[in-house]
Amino acid sequence: MQTELSKKLGVEHAIFGFTPFPAVAAAISRAGGFGVLGAVRYTAPDDLKRDLDWVEAHVDGKPYGLDVVMPAKKVEGVTEADVEAMIPEQHRKFVTETLAKYGVPELAEGEASGWRITGWMEQVARTQLDVAFDYPIRLLANALGSPPADVVARAHERNVLVAALAGSARHALKHREAGIDIVVAQGYEAGGHTGEIASMVLTPEVVDAVDPLPVLAAGGIGSGQQVAAALALGAQGVWLGSLWLTCTEAELTSSAVTRKLLAAGSGDTVRSRALTGKPARQLRTEWTDAWDDPNGPGTLPMPLQGLLVAEALTRIQKYEVEPLLGTPVGQIVGRMTSERSVQAVFDDLTRGFERAVDRMIRIAGRSGK
Amino acid sequence: MQTELSKKLGVEHAIFGFTPFPAVAAAISRAGGFGVLGAVRYTAPDDLKRDLDWVEAHVDGKPYGLDVVMPAKKVEGVTEADVEAMIPEQHRKFVTETLAKYGVPELAEGEASGWRITGWMEQVARTQLDVAFDYPIRLLANALGSPPADVVARAHERNVLVAALAGSARHALKHREAGIDIVVAQGYEAGGHTGEIASMVLTPEVVDAVDPLPVLAAGGIGSGQQVAAALALGAQGVWLGSLWLTCTEAELTSSAVTRKLLAAGSGDTVRSRALTGKPARQLRTEWTDAWDDPNGPGTLPMPLQGLLVAEALTRIQKYEVEPLLGTPVGQIVGRMTSERSVQAVFDDLTRGFERAVDRMIRIAGRSGK
Repeated sequence: MQTELSKKLGVEHAIFGFTPFPAVAAAISRAGGFGVLGAVRYTAPDDLKRDLDWVEAHVDGKPYGLDVVMPAKKVEGVTEADVEAMIPEQHRKFVTETLAKYGVPELAEGEASGWRITGWMEQVARTQLDVAFDYPIRLLANALGSPPADVVARAHERNVLVAALAGSARHALKHREAGIDIVVAQGYEAGGHTGEIASMVLTPEVVDAVDPLPVLAAGGIGSGQQVAAALALGAQGVWLGSLWLTCTEAELTSSAVTRKLLAAGSGDTVRSRALTGKPARQLRTEWTDAWDDPNGPGTLPMPLQGLLVAEALTRIQKYEVEPLLGTPVGQIVGRMTSERSVQAVFDDLTRGFERAVDRMIRIAGRSGK
Repeated sequence: MQTELSKKLGVEHAIFGFTPFPAVAAAISRAGGFGVLGAVRYTAPDDLKRDLDWVEAHVDGKPYGLDVVMPAKKVEGVTEADVEAMIPEQHRKFVTETLAKYGVPELAEGEASGWRITGWMEQVARTQLDVAFDYPIRLLANALGSPPADVVARAHERNVLVAALAGSARHALKHREAGIDIVVAQGYEAGGHTGEIASMVLTPEVVDAVDPLPVLAAGGIGSGQQVAAALALGAQGVWLGSLWLTCTEAELTSSAVTRKLLAAGSGDTVRSRALTGKPARQLRTEWTDAWDDPNGPGTLPMPLQGLLVAEALTRIQKYEVEPLLGTPVGQIVGRMTSERSVQAVFDDLTRGFERAVDRMIRIAGRSGK
């Protein structure tokens, strides 16, 4: 499965895998794809350094990349405390009451909330980059808008390609103007932050808009047929995130979240602002229902919502409070029905792709094999 | 572009075109596809007879079909007057006020509203079938659930295949149980009544669920690349509706609706209950905004909403009141940028499909041509 982009990056298959877990990222690259480690959870540079060391030691010399979350809009001199102060009392009360209603235990004294707003701040992302540029990463992706010009320049000096996610052709064009090398077209069905245009429509629209820049299709891809469909739409590769969450290498194995993911159907996700303040697809839970309820206080804008719910989410996750427990994931969750190794998932994708090509050749009446 | 289903129906290409316009339906079949005439607007049997005569005379002996709207739930002995009586005064007032706000003129005395709820009633659909079964139709499609058992049996006696639209694997399984021959998997991005699962995820899910029944992919398809993608997902053909609206053979040519369709981007549609009471994708207008406004009265359930707005929509369409003027259409509207003949659109689809297959063969490293 070779496109211009996969050749440029020296990977066997044009399958890019985004994951927060180093073991998954390394396994994707070893399997012949391109593993991309999500950096957002590394608020301490040393933690990121430790995990990049691990990836470097387990990737068998294969290429890999890093994904950061740099907000498109730069906010100068605003601290976490400033943002905290902007949160209305009514919303804090709603969090407290909802947690109490479900009997969610408190964190132990001094125990930190794992997921902090700081990971979304440019300053923290820059610290992550300072660490990452010491490693031979081949790709830097940004999940929120184009990275700042100096970051793009710094990446290009190091021969690192820069990718950015886009939910519309307009966003994609902004990325091209910002000197981005690869656009990830993130369809409505994708997990995490996503727009309203479905992959079937979005992918070719973005391909046409930014031509000749390469486009990766994201959203709704979890089988070789879907890989084939994305490539038929003009993408130079696919960008998969959800599918790896239930891999045995993921740090979620045997957790309550994994059980919920394995049980969920394609209709069990919701595009909600409950997580960050911007629409993000995730498992639908009683927590997202509470935030999306027109009789509730509603969500706050980014970054307030993320800060508001950070500790609550840590508690829900730590104590595995099932009715409230969720995770960002796409509609492809319906295909995630068993825990498998990254290699097994990868083999399934590449074999399914070959079968889909066989079928296309038959339908088109081509003789070739 | 040959699949088992296209061979069974004797068409050159596995492209099914749904349209309310006889000239478009006939042109699709003549071009080598399968034209399906929408019957919902024919409340008088003689009108349907006249138009089926026309299709029969212009289809050059090629196969074609009919699409009816038979509600899944049978409501016995309920008249239009009964339904009228269930509409709250507050909602009638909202319609009157909204029309007044935009200065929408009244219809002339005795002038009938063109679009009536009656077209959605089983009794009317049965009258349409009585007419249609006198013609050599090869396919009967139903847009709302499975048709009643006696209708399926009647179709099968006449060697007519029965198709039904589904927005989820669960709906598709119900169709299979009802003896349906073909499932149309209608993705989130499609025009008209549609669910929340995008085509990229829905198509293979429905294919797997109803195997070995053939599945047509609907939603987001307007180019040969998208046809190829849908077939890669396991569909035995594609079902296109939106794309024909801006064809020169359509009865909308040069109208204000056509101008709006040509100008609209993929982000200019909305999935709203404003039209019928069930979520249907359509152009976003100040009319849909008014109904979707949380400060408004909100929409009524089907069939009340359709009856409530029928006259208003006729007035808006007749007088081409631009800010309120809409039509059901999918996200593919962004690709509809010029008025072209059905044949030109068809050639574009088939050539684009061949190019997409060429590209797939290259990416897969196959030698064949």
